Amino acid sequence: MARILTGIQATGRPHLGNILGAIEPAVALSKKPENESYLFIADLHSLTTIKDPQVLVENTRAVACAWLACGLDPEKSFFYRQSRLAPYHTELMWYLNCLTPYPMLANAHSFKDKSEKLSDVNAGLFTYPVLMTADIILYQADFVPVGKDQKQHLEIAKDIAEVFNRVYGEVFKIPAPFINEEVMTIPGIDGAKMSKSYNNYIDIFLPENELNKVVKKIVSDATPLEEPKNPDTDNTFKIFSLVGTPEQVETMRQNYLAGGYGYGHAKKELFETLLTRFAKHREIYNYYFNDTEALEKQLRIGEEKVEEVARKTMEEVRKVMKFL
Amino acid sequence: MARILTGIQATGRPHLGNILGAIEPAVALSKKPENESYLFIADLHSLTTIKDPQVLVENTRAVACAWLACGLDPEKSFFYRQSRLAPYHTELMWYLNCLTPYPMLANAHSFKDKSEKLSDVNAGLFTYPVLMTADIILYQADFVPVGKDQKQHLEIAKDIAEVFNRVYGEVFKIPAPFINEEVMTIPGIDGAKMSKSYNNYIDIFLPENELNKVVKKIVSDATPLEEPKNPDTDNTFKIFSLVGTPEQVETMRQNYLAGGYGYGHAKKELFETLLTRFAKHREIYNYYFNDTEALEKQLRIGEEKVEEVARKTMEEVRKVMKFL
Repeated sequence: MARILTGIQATGRPHLGNILGAIEPAVALSKKPENESYLFIADLHSLTTIKDPQVLVENTRAVACAWLACGLDPEKSFFYRQSRLAPYHTELMWYLNCLTPYPMLANAHSFKDKSEKLSDVNAGLFTYPVLMTADIILYQADFVPVGKDQKQHLEIAKDIAEVFNRVYGEVFKIPAPFINEEVMTIPGIDGAKMSKSYNNYIDIFLPENELNKVVKKIVSDATPLEEPKNPDTDNTFKIFSLVGTPEQVETMRQNYLAGGYGYGHAKKELFETLLTRFAKHREIYNYYFNDTEALEKQLRIGEEKVEEVARKTMEEVRKVMKFL
Repeated sequence: MARILTGIQATGRPHLGNILGAIEPAVALSKKPENESYLFIADLHSLTTIKDPQVLVENTRAVACAWLACGLDPEKSFFYRQSRLAPYHTELMWYLNCLTPYPMLANAHSFKDKSEKLSDVNAGLFTYPVLMTADIILYQADFVPVGKDQKQHLEIAKDIAEVFNRVYGEVFKIPAPFINEEVMTIPGIDGAKMSKSYNNYIDIFLPENELNKVVKKIVSDATPLEEPKNPDTDNTFKIFSLVGTPEQVETMRQNYLAGGYGYGHAKKELFETLLTRFAKHREIYNYYFNDTEALEKQLRIGEEKVEEVARKTMEEVRKVMKFL
């Protein structure tokens, strides 16, 4: 049984790129019986940049609804808001702070990058790799799926965990990175990587007419309707190929190549396919988004389960530190 | 009713200088009915420098015994180990971290000083003014007695508390410094300020024969026994004048001035006076030091009382941060 831990940023409603590239693969992983998936909304980390509590609450809600919409089962995985376990995460963080060399944080890429860009460089931002370490080892995670930009942070986490074990005794598992080389890159409506910051994303949870408008905005070339078109260079086709069934995709490819089939037709088909493919997602999303209590109940399932794990770890920590 | 909060470093058994200069005045303050005294052993802070849990446990025990020996009443004050309230202190610390400008900490005198001297500069040392802020405002303290070296940290604490109140709502009292200008300087056995680092201190909790040996080591000049002596330049007299009754001190002064009274006589009198003056202290110290359970019970009194206060504050904090 491998325990896989993933932090989810509370950046608001995930778009199609997030869903196909991150959420659905993580949900699939969580359903394998050989895995135990810890998936948490990292709202304590969000405090380093978000100061408006209402914004954070709404971001968190949107993210939670989206994961449930994508099929996450809180009974079969561990799905929780980090903030609801804050005392465990932060207490461990302090102990780790005292074992973390200052230069290790000062030289971390992410801090150097962010500290040049952000006007609000706070102590939270500086010490966040230590909180991230606590997030991971508190639950004795075996694997942490990380992108390339997070690799250094996982190295820091391993280092800190090893120092703790050496100084106080073997309490923590040393987490290993789990680097998915074949991460899908989802193109946005302008062909660049789909991203909130490029404002080129498709939000599948939009009301139908708004979703339709976004699909219509997908950039295409000026090839006339009657002429054959190259599917492999067209944004609508590229996106369609990620959401349609293999048969649908093959049919559309033939239509492109045959000519007499316009981008408008393709966009209409993409729109309709999005509605079908994500019908259940949209229904579940809206259900939880409109019923805060029902959502709260789903989150509590995971929060109660992980609290047991966190409490047990912290009891061991306090025992070896002679704080009992 | 003014709430006065004092952090006590867990640096081991306090010496005569600590007792006369800090502990007894604080205990006297705690007995005034107009005050509510929060006195905590800052063992979470100690983790920035002490890595051996057994050393920290013993230091903490010695400090706790000494305060009880000096008359601290856990029923009438709030006496606790910071570590036993760690989840409250550290959770608040994280929220404050995210509101603390990085340069504010990087430019703090204490960090600059320490980071030049210590080989082990860790993230705990860097962020400790934020933990100190949490220590203070968690209990809504009105006043914090500070020496000159801590003045900047209290300014930082005020700043951070004000930022929290501005960003999230008025939760915290803004603490004020309470600077005692007339701090007694206690001379050590060599005449320099009594200090552990100078190894010139008198430990009143030593077994009698060892205490006697230390008193005999007090530096004096070579004036022969029969000649008159200047009490005002002699170390034995200076120390005696802090522990004897006014009558005893006046008698010894006259003996010095009259001649025929040697330093050996004075040291013998000092030794005997220390035993009388601190008889009760030594008895109580040894009682608690040898009965861990009895000591634990005394500490629990305060820890239970302050937990109520900490819980209430953190409920308010989570409410304004919408983390409930």
